[in-house]
Amino acid sequence: MKLLEERIRQEGLILSDTVLKVDSFLNHQVDTELALEIGREFGRKFAGEPITKVLTIEASGIQFAMATGIALGVPFVYAKKKKAVTLAEEVYSAPVHSFTRQETYQVSVSRKYIGPGDKVLIVDDFLATGAALVGLVQIVKEAGAELVGVGCVIEKTFQEGRGLLEQLGVRIHSLARIRAMSPGEIHFED
Amino acid sequence: MKLLEERIRQEGLILSDTVLKVDSFLNHQVDTELALEIGREFGRKFAGEPITKVLTIEASGIQFAMATGIALGVPFVYAKKKKAVTLAEEVYSAPVHSFTRQETYQVSVSRKYIGPGDKVLIVDDFLATGAALVGLVQIVKEAGAELVGVGCVIEKTFQEGRGLLEQLGVRIHSLARIRAMSPGEIHFED
Repeated sequence: MKLLEERIRQEGLILSDTVLKVDSFLNHQVDTELALEIGREFGRKFAGEPITKVLTIEASGIQFAMATGIALGVPFVYAKKKKAVTLAEEVYSAPVHSFTRQETYQVSVSRKYIGPGDKVLIVDDFLATGAALVGLVQIVKEAGAELVGVGCVIEKTFQEGRGLLEQLGVRIHSLARIRAMSPGEIHFED
Repeated sequence: MKLLEERIRQEGLILSDTVLKVDSFLNHQVDTELALEIGREFGRKFAGEPITKVLTIEASGIQFAMATGIALGVPFVYAKKKKAVTLAEEVYSAPVHSFTRQETYQVSVSRKYIGPGDKVLIVDDFLATGAALVGLVQIVKEAGAELVGVGCVIEKTFQEGRGLLEQLGVRIHSLARIRAMSPGEIHFED
């Protein structure tokens, strides 16, 4: 998605070989027009699939799941992050290890909102280590729903996330794929 | 907003005199069409004000800030919640006490995304104790921006939030105002 790559070049802050900040337009301040266009692009890429629900994880996936839900005319569900495993209600859950925070948290989705009849598209802002996305894939499988695929706004192709998801047989579509980066320099995959 | 009141009557789960769960359509699973209509309603209510930014707090305010940003054609910003006060970057911040979790956390917004030239509309899902919203109002004032008002999806008028905000001179507009509730029963303000 050329428009997105251009914005990343213009506004992305590359702090190290692995850390890219895009909080001026994607995940702290959000350009609503760009978010809607991202949703439409996911809608086009997964057109033809009878998707019933979009699934993401709080907080920074919400704006893209919302945009994708708008494009597809379906509701979205956001998994909640909890440190404690206080399952007060019936939920599907999976552990996710955060490498940036060096802690493991639990992601959970109420059993009421995903089930065997659903065809689910997972959407998130970043695909890097893949930890959060693998957790969401586990939840979709546990729910007995069909996973249509995973849509990521930005992928760091030099990290292991795609490999982990492909091992699980997941179809992935990323809108901006970064091959390598360092402060002042960024290279996208062709 | 009649449409919203109807959905609350049909799908809201009243767990006690103070706890209402709306996670089947507002803040876990999200009805994207309803969220968009909520955004349009805030847009209409604050029409005529030259709003430059919508501000909310992660996570459950994001879908409504997004919808309002779409309606107004402006970006939105979501404040981040942190337990630790690790201000790695320049932020405006305010302490917020959570009565449900019995803990105080810090909400913060980067100084880059709100400033003296901004006219800010704050949007959130609930107005009850008002704790989080008062924190956001403090951040807008600290930033030297102009606060246009606060838009809340659901207000519990029997709690102290509105009073606290009105003491600060804030204009409030809520879409569904609950006067009283108990399991099996809910009364909206006229």
